[in-house]
Amino acid sequence: MESVQTTAEKIRRLEVQGARNVAIAAIKAVEALAKETKAKNKKKFLKELSEAKELLFVSRETEPLMRNALRWIISQVEISGKEEVKELAEEVSSASQQFLKSLEDSKEKIGEIGARRIKSGSVIFTHCHSSTVTYLLKKAKEEGKDFEVICTETRPVFQGRVTAKEMLELGVKTTFIVDSATRFFMNQVDFAIVGADAITSQGNVINKIGTSMIALVAHEARTPFYVVSELLKFDPLTMYGDYEKIEERDPNEIWEKPPRDLNIRNPAFDVTRRDFIHGIICEEGIISPHSIIEVMHRKYPWVFK
Amino acid sequence: MESVQTTAEKIRRLEVQGARNVAIAAIKAVEALAKETKAKNKKKFLKELSEAKELLFVSRETEPLMRNALRWIISQVEISGKEEVKELAEEVSSASQQFLKSLEDSKEKIGEIGARRIKSGSVIFTHCHSSTVTYLLKKAKEEGKDFEVICTETRPVFQGRVTAKEMLELGVKTTFIVDSATRFFMNQVDFAIVGADAITSQGNVINKIGTSMIALVAHEARTPFYVVSELLKFDPLTMYGDYEKIEERDPNEIWEKPPRDLNIRNPAFDVTRRDFIHGIICEEGIISPHSIIEVMHRKYPWVFK
Amino acid sequence: MESVQTTAEKIRRLEVQGARNVAIAAIKAVEALAKETKAKNKKKFLKELSEAKELLFVSRETEPLMRNALRWIISQVEISGKEEVKELAEEVSSASQQFLKSLEDSKEKIGEIGARRIKSGSVIFTHCHSSTVTYLLKKAKEEGKDFEVICTETRPVFQGRVTAKEMLELGVKTTFIVDSATRFFMNQVDFAIVGADAITSQGNVINKIGTSMIALVAHEARTPFYVVSELLKFDPLTMYGDYEKIEERDPNEIWEKPPRDLNIRNPAFDVTRRDFIHGIICEEGIISPHSIIEVMHRKYPWVFK
Amino acid sequence: MESVQTTAEKIRRLEVQGARNVAIAAIKAVEALAKETKAKNKKKFLKELSEAKELLFVSRETEPLMRNALRWIISQVEISGKEEVKELAEEVSSASQQFLKSLEDSKEKIGEIGARRIKSGSVIFTHCHSSTVTYLLKKAKEEGKDFEVICTETRPVFQGRVTAKEMLELGVKTTFIVDSATRFFMNQVDFAIVGADAITSQGNVINKIGTSMIALVAHEARTPFYVVSELLKFDPLTMYGDYEKIEERDPNEIWEKPPRDLNIRNPAFDVTRRDFIHGIICEEGIISPHSIIEVMHRKYPWVFK
Amino acid sequence: MESVQTTAEKIRRLEVQGARNVAIAAIKAVEALAKETKAKNKKKFLKELSEAKELLFVSRETEPLMRNALRWIISQVEISGKEEVKELAEEVSSASQQFLKSLEDSKEKIGEIGARRIKSGSVIFTHCHSSTVTYLLKKAKEEGKDFEVICTETRPVFQGRVTAKEMLELGVKTTFIVDSATRFFMNQVDFAIVGADAITSQGNVINKIGTSMIALVAHEARTPFYVVSELLKFDPLTMYGDYEKIEERDPNEIWEKPPRDLNIRNPAFDVTRRDFIHGIICEEGIISPHSIIEVMHRKYPWVFK
Amino acid sequence: MESVQTTAEKIRRLEVQGARNVAIAAIKAVEALAKETKAKNKKKFLKELSEAKELLFVSRETEPLMRNALRWIISQVEISGKEEVKELAEEVSSASQQFLKSLEDSKEKIGEIGARRIKSGSVIFTHCHSSTVTYLLKKAKEEGKDFEVICTETRPVFQGRVTAKEMLELGVKTTFIVDSATRFFMNQVDFAIVGADAITSQGNVINKIGTSMIALVAHEARTPFYVVSELLKFDPLTMYGDYEKIEERDPNEIWEKPPRDLNIRNPAFDVTRRDFIHGIICEEGIISPHSIIEVMHRKYPWVFK
Repeated sequence: MESVQTTAEKIRRLEVQGARNVAIAAIKAVEALAKETKAKNKKKFLKELSEAKELLFVSRETEPLMRNALRWIISQVEISGKEEVKELAEEVSSASQQFLKSLEDSKEKIGEIGARRIKSGSVIFTHCHSSTVTYLLKKAKEEGKDFEVICTETRPVFQGRVTAKEMLELGVKTTFIVDSATRFFMNQVDFAIVGADAITSQGNVINKIGTSMIALVAHEARTPFYVVSELLKFDPLTMYGDYEKIEERDPNEIWEKPPRDLNIRNPAFDVTRRDFIHGIICEEGIISPHSIIEVMHRKYPWVFK
Repeated sequence: MESVQTTAEKIRRLEVQGARNVAIAAIKAVEALAKETKAKNKKKFLKELSEAKELLFVSRETEPLMRNALRWIISQVEISGKEEVKELAEEVSSASQQFLKSLEDSKEKIGEIGARRIKSGSVIFTHCHSSTVTYLLKKAKEEGKDFEVICTETRPVFQGRVTAKEMLELGVKTTFIVDSATRFFMNQVDFAIVGADAITSQGNVINKIGTSMIALVAHEARTPFYVVSELLKFDPLTMYGDYEKIEERDPNEIWEKPPRDLNIRNPAFDVTRRDFIHGIICEEGIISPHSIIEVMHRKYPWVFK
Repeated sequence: MESVQTTAEKIRRLEVQGARNVAIAAIKAVEALAKETKAKNKKKFLKELSEAKELLFVSRETEPLMRNALRWIISQVEISGKEEVKELAEEVSSASQQFLKSLEDSKEKIGEIGARRIKSGSVIFTHCHSSTVTYLLKKAKEEGKDFEVICTETRPVFQGRVTAKEMLELGVKTTFIVDSATRFFMNQVDFAIVGADAITSQGNVINKIGTSMIALVAHEARTPFYVVSELLKFDPLTMYGDYEKIEERDPNEIWEKPPRDLNIRNPAFDVTRRDFIHGIICEEGIISPHSIIEVMHRKYPWVFK
Repeated sequence: MESVQTTAEKIRRLEVQGARNVAIAAIKAVEALAKETKAKNKKKFLKELSEAKELLFVSRETEPLMRNALRWIISQVEISGKEEVKELAEEVSSASQQFLKSLEDSKEKIGEIGARRIKSGSVIFTHCHSSTVTYLLKKAKEEGKDFEVICTETRPVFQGRVTAKEMLELGVKTTFIVDSATRFFMNQVDFAIVGADAITSQGNVINKIGTSMIALVAHEARTPFYVVSELLKFDPLTMYGDYEKIEERDPNEIWEKPPRDLNIRNPAFDVTRRDFIHGIICEEGIISPHSIIEVMHRKYPWVFK
Repeated sequence: MESVQTTAEKIRRLEVQGARNVAIAAIKAVEALAKETKAKNKKKFLKELSEAKELLFVSRETEPLMRNALRWIISQVEISGKEEVKELAEEVSSASQQFLKSLEDSKEKIGEIGARRIKSGSVIFTHCHSSTVTYLLKKAKEEGKDFEVICTETRPVFQGRVTAKEMLELGVKTTFIVDSATRFFMNQVDFAIVGADAITSQGNVINKIGTSMIALVAHEARTPFYVVSELLKFDPLTMYGDYEKIEERDPNEIWEKPPRDLNIRNPAFDVTRRDFIHGIICEEGIISPHSIIEVMHRKYPWVFK
Repeated sequence: MESVQTTAEKIRRLEVQGARNVAIAAIKAVEALAKETKAKNKKKFLKELSEAKELLFVSRETEPLMRNALRWIISQVEISGKEEVKELAEEVSSASQQFLKSLEDSKEKIGEIGARRIKSGSVIFTHCHSSTVTYLLKKAKEEGKDFEVICTETRPVFQGRVTAKEMLELGVKTTFIVDSATRFFMNQVDFAIVGADAITSQGNVINKIGTSMIALVAHEARTPFYVVSELLKFDPLTMYGDYEKIEERDPNEIWEKPPRDLNIRNPAFDVTRRDFIHGIICEEGIISPHSIIEVMHRKYPWVFK
């Protein structure tokens, strides 16, 4: 259980960032737990898994990809005909590998599809750091396309610096701005592209705070705005009326030694309306966010169970 | 000339901030210069003044209030019938006092008028630090109104912290957020209010980078958006086709040790369209920005000369 | 046939109001007819049912829920292997019960899902009277949520008064306004929620006259606007090019003794564009109206037959 | 003072309706007071006038035309060189006549100008009852133009019925609808035209509750929306930060015997944004509302004193 | 192969116009090829078909209907159990007939559905020439509906003249305008209706240059805008990131003898955003473009293979 | 009178095009008439002038610049103290020269001001042919600025070809497109700039058919849209309710040999709403169109007489 606790702690402290990385870390933690389990029987093993799941679920509020992953992996144990704990632990391992493999495949497909949208000479705007977005840009660069990137610094934790460094390493001409300068530069941009932390049943996208303003500014300038996301970031709970919880993080991220009585608010995410999103680039292709529920029913009907 | 150079340097290094403070500092520098002048005759004195003016003009690109002030003060020397340098120096002094007095009067009137717009229970959004905005909020507080303020941190130089501290000192409940969280909070706001660095002949307002995004977000949410400004921030050059120059500041303000080859862009201001502005609260009252040229012709016809 | 005629008459005279209540009344009337039938054989019985259906269909123009209900119930008789009129009458009865039960289940689910959207402290705007909306609000109140409601009087027949009374009985703080005051209050509202009379294949919603203006006003103020509806209010005829008929009711509802020659127009419903609707809260969850056809194909494919 | 009190009471009870009629009634009341005054000297007479003014000012909150009228008439007494009360009373009388005459002239001009905007075959939308709007329509009818009018009933006091009756008397084809049906009919309309109760310094127009929704709906449908108003409905206090007060009237107008604890809100007016107004048709011609302050400075500079 | 080459040439030279006609011509060319083939075996026959396909694919860039047709017909040969070239040629023939028949059926259904949308007295706006649009209008006329059409000339090739002539032949009152006059007439129009060359996975529609401006202008005036299209104009490649290629045609179409050095650009199509489209009228009924992918998966799953 | 008739005829036949050229031609015709007059006395001379004015006024409907010019010139004769016809003819000549000179000065100033708005590297969009726009572009080119122009062909009379040729002669890189391709290219444009035929009292601009669509498309893409115009294109009659007449020209311009019964509509101009116009570049500077009346009152008060 230690590995799970450590991982949960890292997720809480933002040492692990980005929905994909969080999901991967959580899967690995559960896999590790399964390998070292001392549970005597299936029931106890499932209880252990369930506790691990709970620990990981509460580590961050807006992580449907991790949640869908753990739900699926544990359900594979539940429906397994096996009873031996050792065999069941192998089941966890194999389900985890299968999930990770399919995540990898999704990323690969998203990279391929997204890279086709990039033309030489394009100027592309991005916000925060998304490993899928940077993978997609890497693909385009490898295909010989010559484009530029404008990225925001992304307060309060400056994830934009990670993006900028990765772009420079790829040899991409990169411009770096404060978040507030988005509208100043939007008219020079060919399209904007961001990652996602969650997709709701209405087709809205939850992503790093500031994303919805960029989408609004892009809309004002008739600049296409794309979201890059694995479909499994869809949160089935939003279907049934739950609001996607917006995590509020430590005020000290914003101001280390603030004056007394100051009320600092630090929401980590905001909601981008489906109508500002030209398309979600996912493993299925480029889709309109308005049809997300039906896409999920066709591709991953188990998330509704 | 030393005082002028020092002042120009301080303005350049943003040690003096805000259009009002910059204008005041420049006026005082010219006044000091006049007091200590060793010029032998009117012509040489005017040359000195002209050089001082040039030094101060180039210290910052978007400072019409300072420019209008210096233009007016020097023109008073030019049209003066006097020839004695000493008397002319006194002319500078008296014109400066007159200008500062009228600036003070304008601030007072703006404070009074603006305070009337604030009701108890209001939540008011502001960006960056504007001494006129905070004066207006102080007035409202002194009138016994009980309101809240939400202010952005205002990257890259964190002027929002100054605003937050001043509000707390006044006993105003204050919420502090990153710039990107503006849209997250806009629906809870009664109105937004910001200062101005310049007003163009089309009725657009130049203010701290990020202002135009706040205006757009306020417009999207049907939240009134006010600009607080002395009319003399009108820039007559925009009348004749000049773009208001947007100063780009030191990249290190954004990232102290950036990676090599990174292109950091640091524009200090952006342009807010007249159509997003409910009214400009000025010494004349609350006006529609669309009529700015005619208001100026009625109140300050000399700026067009 | 008398019960059918009486019911049809009541529907025509608006004594039965609201799409759910109309559907329930019509089902019960057909059930009653079946119980008392004197038809000699299946063919004659079906003819009787068909006549009842026609009578009820013409009683109101915009009632797809009733129509879908009657279509389904009668089709159960048609496909039944039985030939005995008595047995077929029981078939009607059992199909009716099944339909009513499923309507009840839908309402229950919609209530649960919708109630989750309501937070303590919310101000909720509604128009006209919808039994599903008030059920949802009741659920939220029972869950201990403390919220307020603003409701319009809803001219010409003042159904808003029914809503207001029900809200007061639940102990909900209620504000009552004329329809025209909607925009005056919209900025104080957390979200708007209304019922539906019909949903078209384009994803538009037909509801009480004035609904589309409320949706427009909510959109202008970035206030979420929800529609609450059983999916079976979808009208399959709109799929094939038919306009949803907009019933025009008695001018006297508007002005009892109007001056001669006055042309009074009294449309009962209007059309709200899908783009103004954040989500349809239905038995399936919260969906985007743009995907209505595919949702229907998955859940109720028989409506297309 | 009795006539003044009676008039104030009538205004309060809405027996006198419409900004023009209210102003005329108030002027006549003051004139009557002057005629019957028993004041001994100018000072006392002015005190009497001042009291009358106060009584009339508080009878309704949003009546700048009346206020501008009384301010002007009383100021004529103040600046008069005369000292005899009798002569001063005549001064009141003559100033009143002059003001009424100029009101009449304004109406005449507005009628002429507005009538030119109407073409045969036009369908014109209006709301509530405005004597200036109906005068304008009368002019157009007299010029032989054959047009139709759609008018709302205008809850809660049904002023639309007055408009409808006047239109029918003129022989104009008239359609009468509930307020909520505005959007249903807007696409069939050539333009919308309404009166005004007040104009603010920002160029916004205060008029009967519901006007701002009609303007929004007209804007959505690219239907021109005109306001008809004497310029003296401009409220100089809005210049200096005051909000135009929105009168809230008796809840019983909306519901005579409401259930206990129901919070009925009955605002009489709302605010229409300048950007929804194609033009204000006034005695000066058709103007853009954005320039209202400068128009007033040119035509009626005394209102700013 | 000659018939294929001739057809490809005709398509290239715009002698065959409109997506339907192009698809029909291509199918017929392939059928002819199959009839006259001298291929010795299945492999060689398939190679021939593949070459024909390539020739036809490159003749025009934006022709998914033709492409989907050829893909389907050739796939029928591939999956056929037969080996005899003669039998396979018959397979081509029968698949071609089947495809043409289903195209015909689609047109028939679209005509029926669309005609229901037209009421007597309607004014309908159209652009370019679409055989499906004119078929739909013919249907409506045959049903006795009395409507008017406004059509643009559609530069540079004046296809609007074809539409105008066909309308006059049907006895429809027709108004003919330059493309730029669209906004001048839009407020008099009941709805706009155009054909389509391609539909993308995001739900956008590719059609004759100028279509997207008409859609924007219709949106501004709250005028419904419909697209008429067979579902098989959906381009599966857009799903996987490809941009729909916009063909650029001969500059001489625009200016026969242009001045030297002039850069003439002649894109044949533009992209209309899904949000401007009220509905796509297709063989399935009237659908929201946002759900296009799911509709295709349900009706034509083979296009994704 | 012959020169006047010839000129009127040329204007009617569009041989003289553009508001400036029309005004110049009309002035010259009147000057010529004055030179050759055989009138015996002032009264008869004035009658002759008045007849000439009428002839020229009716030659084209939307020509306020010409009308303001003739009104002013003739008024100079009227108010002249002289009585000798010869002297009065000289008065005409001198007034004409003065007017032409001031037109020339206006053009010069507009050129200077507008050229400042152009930066090297800009892409500028224009429509139709405006001699003032091309003069402005020439100025910018002469100042060494390196920019590109995109111009529409401007159906039906292809005035865009004139613009294209002039641009090529200046050595400006020029792209030529059909009018319908405007939206296809708008996202690549830095700003759009057009001339004007008339300005209304509401601040709207009348210009070549299609202008209002370009303005709408520019607005959608957040692309600045400028109008270049002498202030004397303001039409005082619009102030008093007149609609700016939209000339409808010969159908044969659109289709030389149209089919029988075809209703060709050929409006020459359309109306661009003030809200789509960033600024009017005039001899006074860059102004907001909303304040046009007050600008006219300050600069040319005589137009209101």
